[in-house]
Amino acid sequence: MRESRTNLVGDLLLRLERTGEGLLHERVKRALRTAIREGRIEVGTALPPSRQLAADLGVSRWAVTEAYGQLVAEGYLEARTGSATRVRWSGGAGADAARRAPHRVPEVRFDLAPGLPDLRAFPRRRWAEAVRSQVTTVAFSEFGHPPAGGHPRLRRLLAEYLGRSRGVSATAEDVTVCTSVTDGVRRMCQVLRGQGVTAVGCEEPGWTRLREVIRAAGLETVPVRVDGGGLRTDELAGRRGLRAVLVSPAHQFPLGTVLAPERRAALLRWAHDVDGVVLEDDYDAEFRYDRRPVAALQGMDPSRVVLFKSLSKMLSPALGIGWVVGAARWTRELSAAQPSPLDQLAFAELLESGGYDRHLRACRKRYRVRRDALVRALGESLPSMPVSGAAAGLHLLLRVPTDVDTGRVVRVAGSRGLLVADLAAYHDTEDHADHGLVLGYGNLADGVVGEAVRVLREAVEKGLSLS
Amino acid sequence: MRESRTNLVGDLLLRLERTGEGLLHERVKRALRTAIREGRIEVGTALPPSRQLAADLGVSRWAVTEAYGQLVAEGYLEARTGSATRVRWSGGAGADAARRAPHRVPEVRFDLAPGLPDLRAFPRRRWAEAVRSQVTTVAFSEFGHPPAGGHPRLRRLLAEYLGRSRGVSATAEDVTVCTSVTDGVRRMCQVLRGQGVTAVGCEEPGWTRLREVIRAAGLETVPVRVDGGGLRTDELAGRRGLRAVLVSPAHQFPLGTVLAPERRAALLRWAHDVDGVVLEDDYDAEFRYDRRPVAALQGMDPSRVVLFKSLSKMLSPALGIGWVVGAARWTRELSAAQPSPLDQLAFAELLESGGYDRHLRACRKRYRVRRDALVRALGESLPSMPVSGAAAGLHLLLRVPTDVDTGRVVRVAGSRGLLVADLAAYHDTEDHADHGLVLGYGNLADGVVGEAVRVLREAVEKGLSLS
Repeated sequence: MRESRTNLVGDLLLRLERTGEGLLHERVKRALRTAIREGRIEVGTALPPSRQLAADLGVSRWAVTEAYGQLVAEGYLEARTGSATRVRWSGGAGADAARRAPHRVPEVRFDLAPGLPDLRAFPRRRWAEAVRSQVTTVAFSEFGHPPAGGHPRLRRLLAEYLGRSRGVSATAEDVTVCTSVTDGVRRMCQVLRGQGVTAVGCEEPGWTRLREVIRAAGLETVPVRVDGGGLRTDELAGRRGLRAVLVSPAHQFPLGTVLAPERRAALLRWAHDVDGVVLEDDYDAEFRYDRRPVAALQGMDPSRVVLFKSLSKMLSPALGIGWVVGAARWTRELSAAQPSPLDQLAFAELLESGGYDRHLRACRKRYRVRRDALVRALGESLPSMPVSGAAAGLHLLLRVPTDVDTGRVVRVAGSRGLLVADLAAYHDTEDHADHGLVLGYGNLADGVVGEAVRVLREAVEKGLSLS
Repeated sequence: MRESRTNLVGDLLLRLERTGEGLLHERVKRALRTAIREGRIEVGTALPPSRQLAADLGVSRWAVTEAYGQLVAEGYLEARTGSATRVRWSGGAGADAARRAPHRVPEVRFDLAPGLPDLRAFPRRRWAEAVRSQVTTVAFSEFGHPPAGGHPRLRRLLAEYLGRSRGVSATAEDVTVCTSVTDGVRRMCQVLRGQGVTAVGCEEPGWTRLREVIRAAGLETVPVRVDGGGLRTDELAGRRGLRAVLVSPAHQFPLGTVLAPERRAALLRWAHDVDGVVLEDDYDAEFRYDRRPVAALQGMDPSRVVLFKSLSKMLSPALGIGWVVGAARWTRELSAAQPSPLDQLAFAELLESGGYDRHLRACRKRYRVRRDALVRALGESLPSMPVSGAAAGLHLLLRVPTDVDTGRVVRVAGSRGLLVADLAAYHDTEDHADHGLVLGYGNLADGVVGEAVRVLREAVEKGLSLS
């Protein structure tokens, strides 16, 4: 066992080195997939625990758990209750191996993983009609290359809409259309690097993928802790040389807290004092169920805040439409990848006709009811484990006792068709007392809330009895 | 003048250094635009000739002419007949300057620039109907994150379609959906770099943007000459260590030649001998007017050729849909950006219903008639200047006498609303005898062919009398 693991680690290290580009967790995933496809790891082989492999490869544990999870979904690996992750399929040697389709993918019965909106509620007819109305009527020149920065009509409508709905202060020129928050942050980091920025403060815990993107752009990430009042702005003063920070003020991911008013002011004061910039991740701010959403930080100081947002949680990640809002001083050099201008025009049409507003209102009602049902079911099934986070967004945090192995809970749940995330996966440092599960209810079917919670409770019990 | 030029050069060099990312011509453009916006260059100031500025900045002349051309189109610069390019608009100092809209953009009356298909002929209703049929009927999971490599349905249909129409030999797994040929080549270069490739042979002359992309990916470009039989494959043997070459065998850009049969074989032999790879740019191969198009090189040796293609010249660049076809050995690590899976499904629908075939047949007829009209008009107006290139694609080459300053012809034509390209702009080296203009007729309105050629003749005469 020891030797085969060393061989696997050496093999993966070599492959990681050869593929010097791309996000780390994707490179780990590809390296592992390729090793399996080429038959370097036999069917039935137990893979090392994610923490161990992460240490051996010198990558974050999250990168390994993401890779394992993806390859389970693709049928290369299998995660069995109370057992190690094992290779389920192997290509054997030879080039043709990669062509054979992997075995059946385990079916997802309950989607409690954070990240998706309700895909069943995509406004299909409204979107098809918006595309039709645009494609059949626009000037023929719209079928040419899109103008840099995005379609002017969408940029103008977004500036207006964001002013109205999020208190954003921006002209059309301050809006750059991009394909996702991830891509927007990636490009912005390249710009910041050109402006001499070397590090970005990141919420701890926080959205792991964005930390990876920042590092891939050649910047250091500096963890700044989050508590019940959001980002600990008092920790910023001690980070000498830090001039940029990424924050989700309206609804922190994954803790679900809202940045306290005095910390909003403190954050902007800090940015002013260090001549720095605040990157505002506004990913799900429209969904607040107990009161009106707090306005974007950007509106309080447009000269210091750059806002990132996409339709991924509002309509669908399949549209690949997002935007960056920031003063020319910061975004002048930004050259983001763009979605099709025809899709941009369709979304502009939804904005202008009020169809987007109507869609969001309907979503807010639906998610609020579902969140209430989920909180109630959790209270009944797992009464000793408190739910935390504001009544907002598409996820909540379930605090679990420290004697529950949350990594095992995630694996057991996965083997029973329930997707859920381990809070530990969003931590960048090891020295934290946080212990919990992050539950996303955006894409959970309404009718299965009770059954999903029952399966979750069983997984939690397995996590407890085996630890 | 000398001093102000030095200041300008220093200023631009500083800006170029600060923006270390992105394509060179885009960085030059941004640096120049910013310098003008910030009022660093006054209205009326004459800019140095492109060749001079290119030498001062250490960039290709093409990068500078592209930047000048774009900023003329945006209204920042003006190109007057028989005079230097001058600054037309300036922002003055201050941050607000960038918000003011530049003055009116010179109107394009005749689009003879290569690169676009007939935007008037975009099949609007067919596309809108394809989107509607997909968006209203697919499983809700299609509104989630797209699977890596592209939508499986499109990959399968593309493999079939390319087998039928281009003689490509590929399974669905060999097809990776991307957003453009440029993006596909960029990602492929990253993969090749990971596989130890350090340089890519490039057609000389050839499509400049792809050379830039290859260099931006950290690979060297090695010019390989093109003549009447296409790429001079005999030159490859002399390039020791070269293991990759980018070629457009069906219709070379910009010379319009077709790779000779014996050279196709020689190219594949070379690839086999050096254990290398051929990158096949198949950008406009479907449009052949005198015979059936030659099949893709990829079909002759799927283990050695990776094919790149997009809808940019077939339907519209606005769709942002392209693909890379290659054996897993080469493309295993490829992770390309993807267009919206909803748009991928719409295109899949066009492929499956035969709507795409019908569109291409109609295009072929339209372009053939237009090409004939253009060749006839050129023969009448400029009888001493021969047209060259196969009866194919969307561009032709007009050979002009060496005493015509083609750079001036392009500028004069531009100031009269006629876009046309200088053959010299596609050369990577200075030591060539090629002299000509590249005329794209894809997006030229049928009714204006005669008038466009008259304006072109006037511009050619100006280029002659002033040189």
